[in-house]
Amino acid sequence: MGLYSAPAAVIEQPTEPLLVVISGPSGVGKDTILDHMKQRGLPFHFVVTATTRPRRPGEVEGEDYFFVEEQQFLDMIEKGELIEHALVYNDHKGVPRQQVREAMESAQDVVMRVDVQGAKTIRALAPEALLIFLTAGDEEELARRLRKRRTESEADLQLRLETAKEEFGYLKIFDYLVLNADSQVDKAVDTILAIIEAEHHRIDPRRVEL
Amino acid sequence: MGLYSAPAAVIEQPTEPLLVVISGPSGVGKDTILDHMKQRGLPFHFVVTATTRPRRPGEVEGEDYFFVEEQQFLDMIEKGELIEHALVYNDHKGVPRQQVREAMESAQDVVMRVDVQGAKTIRALAPEALLIFLTAGDEEELARRLRKRRTESEADLQLRLETAKEEFGYLKIFDYLVLNADSQVDKAVDTILAIIEAEHHRIDPRRVEL
Repeated sequence: MGLYSAPAAVIEQPTEPLLVVISGPSGVGKDTILDHMKQRGLPFHFVVTATTRPRRPGEVEGEDYFFVEEQQFLDMIEKGELIEHALVYNDHKGVPRQQVREAMESAQDVVMRVDVQGAKTIRALAPEALLIFLTAGDEEELARRLRKRRTESEADLQLRLETAKEEFGYLKIFDYLVLNADSQVDKAVDTILAIIEAEHHRIDPRRVEL
Repeated sequence: MGLYSAPAAVIEQPTEPLLVVISGPSGVGKDTILDHMKQRGLPFHFVVTATTRPRRPGEVEGEDYFFVEEQQFLDMIEKGELIEHALVYNDHKGVPRQQVREAMESAQDVVMRVDVQGAKTIRALAPEALLIFLTAGDEEELARRLRKRRTESEADLQLRLETAKEEFGYLKIFDYLVLNADSQVDKAVDTILAIIEAEHHRIDPRRVEL
């Protein structure tokens, strides 16, 4: 008890786990950022997304993604196993409900990567989620990264660039904007970690009882 | 132009200077935190407060505070030279308008230290200010720190502890709560720097034109 007995809830608030959503247009480097966050060895619980897109070199099943066949994915939707899902450039992506349940039970900050459509869904499901919009430095940089993957045709590329433009229209529902410039991934990761640290100290006026 | 031409204002937003206000009850370590922030050599512009309170050992005129006589202080009020001022435990403290003007022209993040009364005034004058409430670990810690200064009588001490309790009632107008625990000043400073970094990336929905 004592001096801080009244606002104890506020003092303890910083320890509450956050739901951190890394989002942004295709090609901005969501996967790279997550890889780097994992490498830092911090106590985050990373949610694994299910996808029908082909596995890229170096990706590990059950760690980077759950790689599933289209029919399997449709079954997951049918059974209500996905908390959100979207068709992104002909590939299905979805967040397994079981993954989020495990994450919540971990009492650690939960980090998930979703496309911009998915972020809108998460915002509706969990208004308190921390939504981070990742961006490349400029269009040329984004185009270069998409080409580097060699998984896209030129028509695909144009579609993705157009979509990226439109996706900026949803910035309003995000909390933070982080630049993931070429060769500055560490800087972007540092910023994301600062944001998470800061949010643990944020005062939520709705939760302060006077 | 190109992809990011539309939301350019948003991308540039992170570089806008912040007005960072370090506040909290007497004895939580506002001065210590500021000293440590200065030592980090980061490009902040620190606002110097005018005060009638006696100079403590090691404090430098014009750097830590402007130490003025009571009549001088009252003259400053009379001439409208203070942006805010308050009588805190028989000592006047005030923020010189000229200081804030210089700070704003510096195009750097502005850091100022004010008591909780002052923070309320700043919030009214500059709603976009970033208000950080500093707290000690518990009442015993706060009492120990106040006693250490040896500038307070026991009656003064009790008054300050009571006031600290009341000041928690104003948490709602603050943005962040930072614990400045004994022997963990560096941790508190790290948190404050993370908050400042994060705020530079915050999306202000009012400023996002769609």
